[in-house]
Amino acid sequence: MNLDQMTALIRNVADFPKPGIVFKDITPLLSAPGGVSAVTTHFERAIKELCLEPIDAIVAIESRGFIFGAPLAERMEIGLELVRKKGKLPYQTVSRTYDLEYGTDCIEMHIDAITPGKKYVVVDDLIATGGTAWATCELIEDQGGIVAACAFVIELSFLPGRARLADRPLVVLISA
Amino acid sequence: MNLDQMTALIRNVADFPKPGIVFKDITPLLSAPGGVSAVTTHFERAIKELCLEPIDAIVAIESRGFIFGAPLAERMEIGLELVRKKGKLPYQTVSRTYDLEYGTDCIEMHIDAITPGKKYVVVDDLIATGGTAWATCELIEDQGGIVAACAFVIELSFLPGRARLADRPLVVLISA
Repeated sequence: MNLDQMTALIRNVADFPKPGIVFKDITPLLSAPGGVSAVTTHFERAIKELCLEPIDAIVAIESRGFIFGAPLAERMEIGLELVRKKGKLPYQTVSRTYDLEYGTDCIEMHIDAITPGKKYVVVDDLIATGGTAWATCELIEDQGGIVAACAFVIELSFLPGRARLADRPLVVLISA
Repeated sequence: MNLDQMTALIRNVADFPKPGIVFKDITPLLSAPGGVSAVTTHFERAIKELCLEPIDAIVAIESRGFIFGAPLAERMEIGLELVRKKGKLPYQTVSRTYDLEYGTDCIEMHIDAITPGKKYVVVDDLIATGGTAWATCELIEDQGGIVAACAFVIELSFLPGRARLADRPLVVLISA
């Protein structure tokens, strides 16, 4: 499945989760036989081109990031680390608070998820304003980990997510 | 990685999410290089032994089910359908309410997720009382889909989840 075929399987849903927002629905892409495989193949190829040294683990952001991060860890036969909303992880955690349009949000990782000096690829389905991905990068780097790349299936290019991630290497399959 | 090695990577966390509960933490298994791959390999092998006819798609239950369901869909090169808590899916949905110990909960799928006559494998990380998995099976069957198997990494065998799923074929990797 090429990128044009993948793009055609992204469904626009108007007014979700609130009026005025056009939500990028990835479920038709997931439903298509070979859809998850195709995303994994494109991600793996782009990461190998971008990152000269081996990646140690994937860091997947709850919960649609799990859908693309887990198959990538499976295909690359490397570890998978989870980023979740506050209160979801059972063991001791480290957390990072970040700004939203109105108010703040908080993400967590387990204290033993990141090993200093190891290289990580952050995975999520979509980058919009980039707040969650930015907080994830900061959390990894605060613990001495290296963000080798951030990988997203879809980028909303009219929003400043790319700028927020500054000079961290970016993989984007579909620009919308 | 064999099943004993996988079992050794499940961490017991006491009193999560509430006092008296011992939570089965899968994150050390995910962190281990090849951990996600190993689960996928064991799942695929067990499903092929159990199901004589080809599977059409994986149905993964939010959100830890995404972690194991997506790699299985990737490996088997079949579709992936999502089961989510109420209000998370953007398109038109069908839903099923089910009983908890106290009160009820509700799961949803998109109305175009299930095709009558097609065969599905339901995937989640763990089966406890089996309420969510049961509701997922009912939702699939209500729409004419066939539950070819339900696959869980961990079964809490002191709880009646297996009985609740009645005669639907079960794949369990680790019994705790």
